[in-house]
Amino acid sequence: METAYAELSEDDVCFFRSILGETHAVMDLEILEENSRDYTEDLQFLPSVVLYPASAEEVSQVMAYCHQRVLPVTCRGAGTGLSGGCLPVMGGVVLNMKRMNRIKRIDVHNFQVEVEPGVINRELKNAVEPYGLFYPPDPASSDSCFIGGNVAHSSGGPGAVKYGTTKDYILNLQVVLPCGDIIWTGANTLKNSTGYNLTQLMIGSEGTLGVVTAMVCKLVAMPTHRVLMWAAFEDAVEACTFIPEVLLKGILPSAIEFMETKAVEIAAQTLHVTVDTYQTQAFVLMELDGFNPQDLVSECEKIYEILEQYQVKSVSLAETSEQQQKLWRIRKVMGEAVKRHSVYKEEDAVVPRYRLPDLFRKVKELEEKWGFEAVCYGHAGDGNLHINILKNQLSDDVWENELPKAIRELFVFCKEVGGTISGEHGIGWVQKKYGDIVFTDTHIRLMQGIKDTFDPRGIMNPGKIWNTI
Amino acid sequence: METAYAELSEDDVCFFRSILGETHAVMDLEILEENSRDYTEDLQFLPSVVLYPASAEEVSQVMAYCHQRVLPVTCRGAGTGLSGGCLPVMGGVVLNMKRMNRIKRIDVHNFQVEVEPGVINRELKNAVEPYGLFYPPDPASSDSCFIGGNVAHSSGGPGAVKYGTTKDYILNLQVVLPCGDIIWTGANTLKNSTGYNLTQLMIGSEGTLGVVTAMVCKLVAMPTHRVLMWAAFEDAVEACTFIPEVLLKGILPSAIEFMETKAVEIAAQTLHVTVDTYQTQAFVLMELDGFNPQDLVSECEKIYEILEQYQVKSVSLAETSEQQQKLWRIRKVMGEAVKRHSVYKEEDAVVPRYRLPDLFRKVKELEEKWGFEAVCYGHAGDGNLHINILKNQLSDDVWENELPKAIRELFVFCKEVGGTISGEHGIGWVQKKYGDIVFTDTHIRLMQGIKDTFDPRGIMNPGKIWNTI
Repeated sequence: METAYAELSEDDVCFFRSILGETHAVMDLEILEENSRDYTEDLQFLPSVVLYPASAEEVSQVMAYCHQRVLPVTCRGAGTGLSGGCLPVMGGVVLNMKRMNRIKRIDVHNFQVEVEPGVINRELKNAVEPYGLFYPPDPASSDSCFIGGNVAHSSGGPGAVKYGTTKDYILNLQVVLPCGDIIWTGANTLKNSTGYNLTQLMIGSEGTLGVVTAMVCKLVAMPTHRVLMWAAFEDAVEACTFIPEVLLKGILPSAIEFMETKAVEIAAQTLHVTVDTYQTQAFVLMELDGFNPQDLVSECEKIYEILEQYQVKSVSLAETSEQQQKLWRIRKVMGEAVKRHSVYKEEDAVVPRYRLPDLFRKVKELEEKWGFEAVCYGHAGDGNLHINILKNQLSDDVWENELPKAIRELFVFCKEVGGTISGEHGIGWVQKKYGDIVFTDTHIRLMQGIKDTFDPRGIMNPGKIWNTI
Repeated sequence: METAYAELSEDDVCFFRSILGETHAVMDLEILEENSRDYTEDLQFLPSVVLYPASAEEVSQVMAYCHQRVLPVTCRGAGTGLSGGCLPVMGGVVLNMKRMNRIKRIDVHNFQVEVEPGVINRELKNAVEPYGLFYPPDPASSDSCFIGGNVAHSSGGPGAVKYGTTKDYILNLQVVLPCGDIIWTGANTLKNSTGYNLTQLMIGSEGTLGVVTAMVCKLVAMPTHRVLMWAAFEDAVEACTFIPEVLLKGILPSAIEFMETKAVEIAAQTLHVTVDTYQTQAFVLMELDGFNPQDLVSECEKIYEILEQYQVKSVSLAETSEQQQKLWRIRKVMGEAVKRHSVYKEEDAVVPRYRLPDLFRKVKELEEKWGFEAVCYGHAGDGNLHINILKNQLSDDVWENELPKAIRELFVFCKEVGGTISGEHGIGWVQKKYGDIVFTDTHIRLMQGIKDTFDPRGIMNPGKIWNTI
């Protein structure tokens, strides 16, 4: 069922300006263009108007109006998403949350912080650090992405292997529903068995159910010590095999990242640094954190012991913060660097982590079969591999028509081994065509029923996750 | 809107017997009575028939039939619930899950286990322990409660302060919907950003949305060392204040339990052991676990330092497993012991943990104001206090008509300080009358819409959480 959306009228814009102020409902082409893209491939969808609300009350008035008018509304954070989740594919209103960027309350005694959705992930981390507190979720884009966007996709990052993803750090959400009602989804407590878990239902719903206008986040004590290990493997499949071995020994690193050698080379070139990649196929970066340096040393020793069973070219240990940052930069710039290299598609495959070697082998098999080049890196401790498929010299026809068959084969494999098609990027717009691999008709019916309950006129971020029935 | 439910007919029973076998659809009064109660006060609701399915396929056939016939169906685990969640308040069918008790798969490499809902919590723990793995959720009833019931209420326990509750250990659920469809809600992965989080929506939904027939649980490495501290406080409010201080120092115990002295005395009497309670108002039991005994010693030393600022009568340290079990028994028998003492009501209040002293003071204030006796103990590290109100000499009139006003005042206080009315027991049947304190009309509308999507004829565990609209 295709909803008949209204076209934006002059009256609508007048109304928005009366609520938000003249300068916060913008139709300049430059601004529309700024709000028409995210970090996903080369997609572009122009909205009709961009609104910049400053409070839940303003959002409420805007939503109630758009609900009544049946105007599509798409929420936008920092636009760093990788599935096209914030693109206004049906046009209409973009609700740009960047003015709602207040850290409202740091509750040191309860290890909690209340923030608005436009707060940058890094700023939240920085704000609580002086109190010895730590907000763990750390997407690669943490220097620019908004907490609101993190909630929309339940974003993860390297730390998820030890600390979990955004969903594990949200206690309570303030949500404006399309009808304009404002609710809090839960309580500011670590436990809650009071009604359906609307908080977790909102997290990862990609802005299709309502507008999150504030979140109470859980914090943990900030580890006082960190070490970083960097190991170069001669064989990439061995690198994948090594990773679950570490966890089986009772060691829980705060990051275990897998990087194919070509990803490291591309990142190193971009940063103008030298990394010895001779006779290596992959690198593994492991971070250990804790409160006792002696512990970290003994964990490193155990890891060295495990490494002895593998063909490892070199292992280095970064103990100073400066050394660590240098290595982390290679990993963090990787996504951007690889993508600058060519037109690309990035897949966010996830499997039970012991199946990672099989997933990697599958990628290599598909590479050969379909003739594309894939560059892999990702959060190996979670079985979450980011697979960047580069267009290079492939024809447009192969790129558009053949490649999706290869990707489908990849995702079918993930599903077969107990995994799924997105670990942390969401389905958004670009992965929707693979939804049938994981969603049965029953799943779609349930999601649609939930959607209809929250958003009966289908105005919230239309066109995402699945095709409305 | 009150649904018109069908009465159980002979044909229905014939159908059930044809699916489940003659002996697995039972109407003997003794069996109906066995399935008419749980651990909640002295409530009793008789079902018309008790069914014992052995597989998801049998559940599916039963559910599709009941859906078509509009017969109420209430799922039952071990019946250890404390909110009346499994009581068939509208009669009809009880689906007793005790035959579905297989541990289907222990996946050591991926730290996962797949079980059926009738597996006892303790049996799951025991099954994975030989592999060095640990399933943390530990309700007081862990020796008898079923994992299925734990999922229904997102049960916690003492370990939640460090490890979280059931919701943090469920990766994927097999669910039979009332229409008979069988789905898996997610994937067997640590991360998942693929559609709405139906897994978390099911957890804590108290059997009102569907029947969980299998669950994939996440495991962690089993800590190799444990110590237990037991501290006697002269002042109960000071004991509450001490608890968050420990966490603020960066120590994360695997349990921090608060117990009023009278709770300890009642438990000790029941166990025929002696505890010196002279000039004490409360006890705090703290467990530390980890992989390095030296670490635990240094954490204990830090805790001793903190304790020096408080009026503490005595502190003891239990290092052997035997000493630890002795102390744990006092805590674990407490609920049962206190309840044997008198007719009672147990409240499961939860607040941000630094507000625990305020919550405790509020209980004492209400005790004085309304003339009842309350015995408090609980998971202080989570701000979750179990408040047992004893009837003692109160008249039936006061007990039935006045006490709810006191409880309401207590819950309004919890809500005001950011807490809520149930931390881990659920709303079920008995707490429904306080739902208006935390649920707005909008919450009810959303929950009802979700319910209607999953269970359009309202047959699943009717009468629970809120009154159907």
